[in-house]
Amino acid sequence: MEDMDPIINNTCVLMNSDGSVNVVTEKQLKLSSMEPGSVLLQLVLSEVCGTDVHLKHGRLDIVPYPIIPGHVAVGRVFATVGSIVDVEGSPVVQGDIVTYLDVIDTCNSCVTCLVDKQTTRCPLRRVLGITCNADSNSIRGLLGGWSSYVYLPPNTKIIRLPEMLPASVFMAGGCGLPTALHAVDRASIRLMDRVIVQGSGPVGLLAAILARLSGALQVIVVGAPAHRLKVVKEFGIDHTISIEEFPDPSKRLAQVQDLTSGHLGDVVIEATGRPEAVTEGMMLCRDGGTYVVVGQYTDNGEVALNPHQMINRKHLTIKGCWGSDFSHFYRGVQFLTKHATSLPWHLLVSQIFELKDADKAIAAVERLEVFKALVKPSQA
Amino acid sequence: MEDMDPIINNTCVLMNSDGSVNVVTEKQLKLSSMEPGSVLLQLVLSEVCGTDVHLKHGRLDIVPYPIIPGHVAVGRVFATVGSIVDVEGSPVVQGDIVTYLDVIDTCNSCVTCLVDKQTTRCPLRRVLGITCNADSNSIRGLLGGWSSYVYLPPNTKIIRLPEMLPASVFMAGGCGLPTALHAVDRASIRLMDRVIVQGSGPVGLLAAILARLSGALQVIVVGAPAHRLKVVKEFGIDHTISIEEFPDPSKRLAQVQDLTSGHLGDVVIEATGRPEAVTEGMMLCRDGGTYVVVGQYTDNGEVALNPHQMINRKHLTIKGCWGSDFSHFYRGVQFLTKHATSLPWHLLVSQIFELKDADKAIAAVERLEVFKALVKPSQA
Amino acid sequence: MEDMDPIINNTCVLMNSDGSVNVVTEKQLKLSSMEPGSVLLQLVLSEVCGTDVHLKHGRLDIVPYPIIPGHVAVGRVFATVGSIVDVEGSPVVQGDIVTYLDVIDTCNSCVTCLVDKQTTRCPLRRVLGITCNADSNSIRGLLGGWSSYVYLPPNTKIIRLPEMLPASVFMAGGCGLPTALHAVDRASIRLMDRVIVQGSGPVGLLAAILARLSGALQVIVVGAPAHRLKVVKEFGIDHTISIEEFPDPSKRLAQVQDLTSGHLGDVVIEATGRPEAVTEGMMLCRDGGTYVVVGQYTDNGEVALNPHQMINRKHLTIKGCWGSDFSHFYRGVQFLTKHATSLPWHLLVSQIFELKDADKAIAAVERLEVFKALVKPSQA
Amino acid sequence: MEDMDPIINNTCVLMNSDGSVNVVTEKQLKLSSMEPGSVLLQLVLSEVCGTDVHLKHGRLDIVPYPIIPGHVAVGRVFATVGSIVDVEGSPVVQGDIVTYLDVIDTCNSCVTCLVDKQTTRCPLRRVLGITCNADSNSIRGLLGGWSSYVYLPPNTKIIRLPEMLPASVFMAGGCGLPTALHAVDRASIRLMDRVIVQGSGPVGLLAAILARLSGALQVIVVGAPAHRLKVVKEFGIDHTISIEEFPDPSKRLAQVQDLTSGHLGDVVIEATGRPEAVTEGMMLCRDGGTYVVVGQYTDNGEVALNPHQMINRKHLTIKGCWGSDFSHFYRGVQFLTKHATSLPWHLLVSQIFELKDADKAIAAVERLEVFKALVKPSQA
Repeated sequence: MEDMDPIINNTCVLMNSDGSVNVVTEKQLKLSSMEPGSVLLQLVLSEVCGTDVHLKHGRLDIVPYPIIPGHVAVGRVFATVGSIVDVEGSPVVQGDIVTYLDVIDTCNSCVTCLVDKQTTRCPLRRVLGITCNADSNSIRGLLGGWSSYVYLPPNTKIIRLPEMLPASVFMAGGCGLPTALHAVDRASIRLMDRVIVQGSGPVGLLAAILARLSGALQVIVVGAPAHRLKVVKEFGIDHTISIEEFPDPSKRLAQVQDLTSGHLGDVVIEATGRPEAVTEGMMLCRDGGTYVVVGQYTDNGEVALNPHQMINRKHLTIKGCWGSDFSHFYRGVQFLTKHATSLPWHLLVSQIFELKDADKAIAAVERLEVFKALVKPSQA
Repeated sequence: MEDMDPIINNTCVLMNSDGSVNVVTEKQLKLSSMEPGSVLLQLVLSEVCGTDVHLKHGRLDIVPYPIIPGHVAVGRVFATVGSIVDVEGSPVVQGDIVTYLDVIDTCNSCVTCLVDKQTTRCPLRRVLGITCNADSNSIRGLLGGWSSYVYLPPNTKIIRLPEMLPASVFMAGGCGLPTALHAVDRASIRLMDRVIVQGSGPVGLLAAILARLSGALQVIVVGAPAHRLKVVKEFGIDHTISIEEFPDPSKRLAQVQDLTSGHLGDVVIEATGRPEAVTEGMMLCRDGGTYVVVGQYTDNGEVALNPHQMINRKHLTIKGCWGSDFSHFYRGVQFLTKHATSLPWHLLVSQIFELKDADKAIAAVERLEVFKALVKPSQA
Repeated sequence: MEDMDPIINNTCVLMNSDGSVNVVTEKQLKLSSMEPGSVLLQLVLSEVCGTDVHLKHGRLDIVPYPIIPGHVAVGRVFATVGSIVDVEGSPVVQGDIVTYLDVIDTCNSCVTCLVDKQTTRCPLRRVLGITCNADSNSIRGLLGGWSSYVYLPPNTKIIRLPEMLPASVFMAGGCGLPTALHAVDRASIRLMDRVIVQGSGPVGLLAAILARLSGALQVIVVGAPAHRLKVVKEFGIDHTISIEEFPDPSKRLAQVQDLTSGHLGDVVIEATGRPEAVTEGMMLCRDGGTYVVVGQYTDNGEVALNPHQMINRKHLTIKGCWGSDFSHFYRGVQFLTKHATSLPWHLLVSQIFELKDADKAIAAVERLEVFKALVKPSQA
Repeated sequence: MEDMDPIINNTCVLMNSDGSVNVVTEKQLKLSSMEPGSVLLQLVLSEVCGTDVHLKHGRLDIVPYPIIPGHVAVGRVFATVGSIVDVEGSPVVQGDIVTYLDVIDTCNSCVTCLVDKQTTRCPLRRVLGITCNADSNSIRGLLGGWSSYVYLPPNTKIIRLPEMLPASVFMAGGCGLPTALHAVDRASIRLMDRVIVQGSGPVGLLAAILARLSGALQVIVVGAPAHRLKVVKEFGIDHTISIEEFPDPSKRLAQVQDLTSGHLGDVVIEATGRPEAVTEGMMLCRDGGTYVVVGQYTDNGEVALNPHQMINRKHLTIKGCWGSDFSHFYRGVQFLTKHATSLPWHLLVSQIFELKDADKAIAAVERLEVFKALVKPSQA
């Protein structure tokens, strides 16, 4: 930062409240507005996930449009103001390849944070790429990943990517991994549990992988379409049940009964985003089992629930799971580093789009053509 | 049992699948059919609870009518076959005033009991007075409390009432206490938690009392009618909210917000039996709070649930609670003994009916005239 | 703070590494060195607790002498720099009577805080009056309660005392209450548990009170001397066992067996500071019980442990308990406010010393003459 | 059992209170003394484990010598009285290859079983081969595995070996697996935990394997001798630390610090049987970590413990672990079946002894020559 007032040329994608998406190109922005303790990254890779599709359709009521989408990303440190350290206390310097917790502003000073200890529900908490209003005319407004530069405000938690963890493998985990890890933590899987995962998107697949590596006796994924279930199997998951092949939920229940010798799931994890999956998931749980609902991140309406049959009489424990905190993110990086070469991560990240094609990337994800689309600036 | 073939004259109440209730009077039954390890009691007191009203209306689909209703009761030991001991190993002998766990036949040999450790969901488990088909022509069929004699099959868990615990105080707790204790155990109340209880019937009132005595900062009961809420207050509960006064759930939510300075319930316990209470209860929980659903013991239909708003985003932990086991029953007796004189138990048991008036007793409970009706044989 | 450079005359007590204690009187200090976000209090009341006696004898190896002792205190806001809010977001202004979490500098940025979530073990954490080196020549060094003014650095967590909570009642809880509350949280007391507390100092007494109010079936305190046990009984604790009357641990065990009908403690809480109490406490636990060790805050040596007899075969769960966090402090204030008039708090705070008599106050606590000595400046 | 009074010729090994071991050969015993619900097995394989060495030296004070050692075993059903079913309800018939929970007589009727829910501490519980006095003159006394026939009293929990699980693989898990599984359950390992296991005997090795398959970031085994550590590595464990190479505990601590980047163990599991390992294990735990003590099954004396340094200040959670219950045994069979071919089980069971050579087998285990010695009758 020894330069006098350096300027960057930034290109980014804006998503508006009407669902429109436009690209702002080659905007000249001055570095001098960076705050003490902040970091500016050149984007290496960001992603398009199912949440971005929901955001386009306005299904989350806490989004201050316009935003620059893209929550989890990898970048190269371009500029810092003041000395920056990672969570281990090591300095973060220009040129480092890093990722960051996309959650900022958690206050650690309110009753929710300090007494209830529910930091993912802190009222001040914001998520880059989702609940940060983006001002594309200012460096301080580059608060999302679909951008050639990303601004990390002071106190953003930064992790340098370990050498053994390529950016593309990290992005295969992407935003889904901390979410899946949080869900699996909430599930408290025990050795030899039977685990059912509803949904075969990134969160579902990752939750299934984590359940398998937690020592489950068997893991069953209920999902679609076929090409996703094929990938699920290539990650070593024991069984898949296709909702295309078995559109009737009672048939899927019968399949699960067969596969589990009538025992059903000790643990069921919902990762679909569809309300009707919730009551189906309760059916797939054994009596006294645990059901984690993580996929209902956006509002997709209601489902009819019989609380006698589904909650009381089954003696279920049902756990909602909102967001993730730094521990999930940190352990997610540990996980990917440990398993970087032993799992076929490339199957998740087959398609990379330039920023200007963000709309196509969203469409590909919405059509479930790809597990996840990556985005990167043309020059990266 | 030194007599050669003694005979008893038994009077009992039968409830049939069409909801009809009839009294079988002065039936002569031979003691000789008692099994080794069994106990015959002369009834001292049994009760009519909300479940009995539901059973009359056929709202539980696992009841093998006809039954002799009356699950929890107090009796005087009339006959035993073999030597009987209580859980501490002390002998149980003729003349002892005892109560008993109304649950029998839990197998302790199946995967549900031994591996899943969900004994209240053991498929062989039966509940006296609810899921035991009753043959009023045989001593072995006297498997319910609304009867001058009650038959306790081998291995029924028996507790002698401590001297300091009058039968009427025990029955004030009755079947509701182990249920409420199970619910409060599931809730894991911490010192200074704010606790909301939905429902002011016996389970709701008892859960509120237990929450208060668990060190809650404040306990709020949402219920009706007014005379029940009056009793709730006389048990030292901090606040009541009348659903008659505030028929609109959003007004009740506002009341709870006011009373808790906007914090809502750290713990909410549902004890209403009404499906629509379940979504309301989720609203009354703070983010990251715990919701225990214990009142949906019978099937009263569905409720529309928005899983995004109510489960995922609130990060709730929701726990169903089915039945109770011996630990709840045993600790319930400890609880009542400890608090026998310090709480106004008489407010719960103001009305006692003879067996022949069982129909009137059910009606009184259905009209919510009384907290709980007791039944006893005319000679008791 | 509109004044130009106001000066205060401060008197404080310094404790040195050789155990000497000296009073620094009427030092003139300038307010201008206060940091943005800091608060200066005029002391109302502070305390002398058992830890201060240990500090005098050098039994904690992490103390950067000299220090101004006195961790928990009540003060009147004298000056603030910038706008200060409490945890509910309400402004804290001059004249407010407040207390504060004596723990500062917890970083919320390291692996211990964020991943292990053990904030009471954060390496940067410091405790006012214990692990803060005190410079009595600077306002910024007034980091302990035995002082006419106390400096609260930026981000110190402040709570305004509720109107219903007199300072003397708050100080009766003092530093012992958050510690006791943390210990009782760790113990996870269930309704009808039998609880044994070892130690009848402030932490022991407060843990016993909290256990009783958590719904324990019975609470037994093992301690001395007689006048403390008398106070214990006046707080409604069921039983006391005098270690003066029963100096032989096996006799104390026999007493506990008698009082619990042979069951022993479901939960045992150690609050003595004596190593040999730890193995005795394991003996007082039932098989499969929970033992919380909270009293070993300073180093008093070793004890011989047979891990087969005491840990493995008894299948115990043993929990160390270090310090406390804001939640314990906050809930402690809620607790005292709720019970301000219903418990005889005055029995704990009978003696108040001036700052200049700090040595006498320490001696009185060391001789166990008083439960806790309070200190206050002469003018307060 | 249609024969009139069939006779078997049994050979078994008796262990006496003086540590002597003698073989009783070709004893003629009548089948007619079998009880209803009992099963007689022809032994296929039993084992010699470290506990048997301890029993020979009288290190467990609850053993009613003489006993027939051998707790866990595989047998072929030779005779049954009445209809016998396994835990799934399937009939067990002559010729079936089965194993069984070596724990009998757990009462499920006492306060320990029903209220404290600590069934492994039930006072009536007995373990075949350890706490069953053996009468070698009666079929009913064949209560241990080192025998050509083994008698399973009524209610012994039986599991038929799945076809995919050879007896030798099952015995590789043997008695150590349910113990290790219980310990790992108590440890509540989370994905990406660092786990240290003390001890490289069967329980230590199996706990390490289970920790690895529970998703640990890394697993470190501290043990000896070299040939055992070699096997540990062949099971995929990340690191071993040799106590022969590093006889000084502080050097082993330094090794663990190095291997864990200074973080130490989130979880440490003790499986050594040596008291001094317990304080070392506490040192190997990170602050706020979990320490499970499972190896102190027999009494090997005391260790000096500093409770301030090791328990309180480290804020540890320490869990004793006694015995195992049916769930551990059942899930152990599931585990071995799932991993029967993917792990090199043969490395654990290289040596098989005939009954007459039991003394040699014990000696081989005591010298740590083998991981575990198997025993089988000459004809099996």
